[in-house]
Amino acid sequence: MSSVIETLAGIVGAAHVLRGEDASGYEQDWRRRAQGRALCVVRPGSTQEVAAVVQACAAARVAIVPQGGNTGLVAGSVPDGTSTQVVLSLRRMAAVRAVDPHNMTITVEAGCILQTLQETADAAGFLFPLSLGAEGSCTIGGNLATNAGGTQVVRYGNARELCLGVEVVTAQGQVWDGLAGLRKDNTGYDLRDLIVGSEGTLGIITAATLRLYPKPAAQLTAWAAVPSLEDANRLLGLAHQQLAAGLTGFELMNQFALGLVDRHYPQLRVPMWREQPWCVLLEISDHESEAHARGLFERLLETAFEQGIVADAIVAESIKQAHDLWHIRESITLAQVEEGFNIKHDISIPVSRIPDFVRAADAALTQAVPGVRFVNFGHLGDGNLHYNIQAPAEGDSRAFVQQHEEQITGIVYDTVSAFGGSISAEHGIGELKRHKLPLHKSPVALDLMRAVKTAFDPLDILNPGRVLAPQG
Amino acid sequence: MSSVIETLAGIVGAAHVLRGEDASGYEQDWRRRAQGRALCVVRPGSTQEVAAVVQACAAARVAIVPQGGNTGLVAGSVPDGTSTQVVLSLRRMAAVRAVDPHNMTITVEAGCILQTLQETADAAGFLFPLSLGAEGSCTIGGNLATNAGGTQVVRYGNARELCLGVEVVTAQGQVWDGLAGLRKDNTGYDLRDLIVGSEGTLGIITAATLRLYPKPAAQLTAWAAVPSLEDANRLLGLAHQQLAAGLTGFELMNQFALGLVDRHYPQLRVPMWREQPWCVLLEISDHESEAHARGLFERLLETAFEQGIVADAIVAESIKQAHDLWHIRESITLAQVEEGFNIKHDISIPVSRIPDFVRAADAALTQAVPGVRFVNFGHLGDGNLHYNIQAPAEGDSRAFVQQHEEQITGIVYDTVSAFGGSISAEHGIGELKRHKLPLHKSPVALDLMRAVKTAFDPLDILNPGRVLAPQG
Repeated sequence: MSSVIETLAGIVGAAHVLRGEDASGYEQDWRRRAQGRALCVVRPGSTQEVAAVVQACAAARVAIVPQGGNTGLVAGSVPDGTSTQVVLSLRRMAAVRAVDPHNMTITVEAGCILQTLQETADAAGFLFPLSLGAEGSCTIGGNLATNAGGTQVVRYGNARELCLGVEVVTAQGQVWDGLAGLRKDNTGYDLRDLIVGSEGTLGIITAATLRLYPKPAAQLTAWAAVPSLEDANRLLGLAHQQLAAGLTGFELMNQFALGLVDRHYPQLRVPMWREQPWCVLLEISDHESEAHARGLFERLLETAFEQGIVADAIVAESIKQAHDLWHIRESITLAQVEEGFNIKHDISIPVSRIPDFVRAADAALTQAVPGVRFVNFGHLGDGNLHYNIQAPAEGDSRAFVQQHEEQITGIVYDTVSAFGGSISAEHGIGELKRHKLPLHKSPVALDLMRAVKTAFDPLDILNPGRVLAPQG
Repeated sequence: MSSVIETLAGIVGAAHVLRGEDASGYEQDWRRRAQGRALCVVRPGSTQEVAAVVQACAAARVAIVPQGGNTGLVAGSVPDGTSTQVVLSLRRMAAVRAVDPHNMTITVEAGCILQTLQETADAAGFLFPLSLGAEGSCTIGGNLATNAGGTQVVRYGNARELCLGVEVVTAQGQVWDGLAGLRKDNTGYDLRDLIVGSEGTLGIITAATLRLYPKPAAQLTAWAAVPSLEDANRLLGLAHQQLAAGLTGFELMNQFALGLVDRHYPQLRVPMWREQPWCVLLEISDHESEAHARGLFERLLETAFEQGIVADAIVAESIKQAHDLWHIRESITLAQVEEGFNIKHDISIPVSRIPDFVRAADAALTQAVPGVRFVNFGHLGDGNLHYNIQAPAEGDSRAFVQQHEEQITGIVYDTVSAFGGSISAEHGIGELKRHKLPLHKSPVALDLMRAVKTAFDPLDILNPGRVLAPQG
């Protein structure tokens, strides 16, 4: 093993091979669910160095765990506990290689922080729409490897839809330059989309060419209280119809989730949450003017009000007020932590089936584990709910979670499957969900996935045991 | 072989196994570039029958050529001349399985004609935006298998971007039901996009769940004469900026192409073509009103006129006039035929590099083959040109094409590669371009493609020799 470390130091320089205490920041995941031990952390500075690192590891049969900002939620980018896996950090490869205004594309290296990418696009007069909680520290390589979602998916799609091309180092240490930046290319199989979302198990993304969008002239945010999930769905349909591509955000929050924010952060002044069981946060992006956007929003909310879909609503009067509304939505996660331990699920369901799903899942859980509380919020426009279960108000929440997590998650996932949904909408599989996957995914699809993995990485050195659990 | 035919007849019924004269309509491609001979044509009526057919063929090591509407342009869906391949026609599987308004999806079988799909979506109050010349006879299964493009890609993307899920029969005759209709699903590798665009070589698409969009309140068409390709690019950038997602069409046509339409179809009254070297057809879709759309269009064209980007422009005053303008654009292909034989190329280039590419390719061809004439038109918004070469005005155009096609296509493709483009933007590879692919595609990507093919179809029975030429 020490000869591998020496070889890697020869490739990237001894200063960029970290061990012991220096490596510890790369060995634990963001949610502190997994604590590994790496053989070493290697930080290449170029695509060629990544390729040489992979070749060296392949020759020595040493496994590689690619890592970006290490903000993933499924323990997919930290090593196991055996001290035999090399963490390959892409963080040094953070350059913006090119902005092409007429092609409306930007080409960046994998280690570029998402926020830097957003800011670079903005400075060039464009919007890069991927936006999520960890944007200040996650990297675009990680976003693509996990096909990140976020709050703008209803309009712009997931990370996959924003990507026109990738540069990849294969498991054989070869470089595939797929960065062409073409909007149409039918010369063979879609390797780009196979790599995107494969969580570092099929190849290592070293750079990407991404779509840019025109910057809107104005963005407005509204907040509406709705009587039922059916009404939330009707409001979503109406918003699609009236705003079309102007609808860039549609977030749903249940009363209990907003009540937690109100209890733990009363200074945020959550609006309307006591009135109705659900609130919705809507965002419109407009390419004409703020006045035009406001007119469209008011027409939408008036129609919804007349139809009884919306009980009450406000349109933010200032950017500050809009930020405050988004801040409430984003504070749900921390309010849950303040309240105690909880069990998270990141699921998706066809939008039309969400009301029935929530009723069925709520009922099954209430019957199985009396006292559970439902923190239900998410991106309704994408059918994506963060359907989280908070321990009962009384008692030790940590003990509750330890005792009931397996059972509760089983019930949630079984209900998701019964409604044709996905047990991981935007977070991926990683290490944490790999054993659940075979229970909820078509065996035909799993066989095809295993065939792809074996074809791309016959030595099983790229992030082994992630996504697909070891067999036998 | 006769026992295979009997087995197939036992699966689908003898009436749905065609031979001899009955099979001839399935043996020649639409462009009459390839004339094959099938062992038989089999027309299954259900996914289960498709699976049984594949199992029977796999057991007998008989190759299968999946076929939809047989409107492809690269001879990818007709059998070879050996009378040993079975054509599997999906045309009987044409049902619309479901329309889900709240999920904004439609689920259809592979043999559904594109126009039927458009009309079904329209009747349900939605838009299915895929639109192309063959829409009256092509099938959605074929559209997905070839990742079809068309005229709305600048806003809605290719067939790939419109597809949320597929049902597929694998090379082993197993059924993968991937029809969930989810907008977010990160449970493993993106098998959907691997199948889409694989031209029937990795699996047989039997059904698909597709995105629907809100129907616009108004659509308007404009026609503008522009002095240069750089100006066309500037107009495109301005249109993105001012119209954003309202821009649903941006078609470029050169003077020679429009001159051919004028010569052979003078009744179409081509506007402005004598004034400037290029004309552009723009389409806007608006969710408010025709008046609003007209205001946006007029503002755009005024700005462009003031900046000297546009020399002259009209906005169609009626739906009839808009159709007439589109009809001119769509008549270029037939006008070329009237003029004589020509050599077609379906290429893409990063939008920003198109002016330099066209100058370089025009110059190289003019030098190599004096007298060639350039029919250059296409979807500029996607960087996709149909860069076609018409034989010189004098002489036998058929002989010219026979003599020069290889040389001319070689020059075009080499120039495309030099500018980082694709030799097949929207038509695919099929049989016609499979020998060109290795000259213009990364060997690393080709190796990965071959690994995928072998992993999915180890017996090489699904559309063998298409996309990837036989090796050795």
